[in-house]
Amino acid sequence: MKQVLVVNAALRLPKGKLAAQVAHAAVGAFLEATTSAQQRWLDEGMPKVVLKGNSAEELLRLQTLARQRHIPTCLISDAGRTVVPAGTVTCVGLGPAGDNEIDEITGALKLLS
Amino acid sequence: MKQVLVVNAALRLPKGKLAAQVAHAAVGAFLEATTSAQQRWLDEGMPKVVLKGNSAEELLRLQTLARQRHIPTCLISDAGRTVVPAGTVTCVGLGPAGDNEIDEITGALKLLS
Repeated sequence: MKQVLVVNAALRLPKGKLAAQVAHAAVGAFLEATTSAQQRWLDEGMPKVVLKGNSAEELLRLQTLARQRHIPTCLISDAGRTVVPAGTVTCVGLGPAGDNEIDEITGALKLLS
Repeated sequence: MKQVLVVNAALRLPKGKLAAQVAHAAVGAFLEATTSAQQRWLDEGMPKVVLKGNSAEELLRLQTLARQRHIPTCLISDAGRTVVPAGTVTCVGLGPAGDNEIDEITGALKLLS
């Protein structure tokens, strides 16, 4: 089991802002999962990977693919109070779900360094 | 209601690594909260702030203060597989809890930029 958080790297958000968006997506996608998937993921120590997306469109496409596979997702749009315009897609959370299921969708993406 | 994530800025973690630690703390502290506190926080849109701590000791001290006040907390130590030595304290999550309760503990800390 794992959870993947894909950020919109084109926005070049500052560290703290980026971390808040990722945390938002992590909690949001977790809450979309079944109790049994939540529990398995917690038992495994909440494995979590942050990957780099290139655009809002890419994040939306990942969400569509995940939904088709019944993987829990949460798309975060910033409220726009601080750094970016309101409604900007900043991050999408996928899972917790099985490693293979997630890799089918995000396997080609790079780790955010 | 809000949740505060305080990172150990002395580690100068790369963006992706930092975001994963913050997300870990966010989910962990959320799960420590009462159902009623969770629900109130979700209803308010999961307000979340990422703040800058200066050392592992500071994060441990914040956790102690939070526990004394029955604020949910989650201290994250990295498994040490990648960037930092095993057991390194990277982040502490505090809340969801009332704004005033949290500010009593973290009000003097700066936003992580």
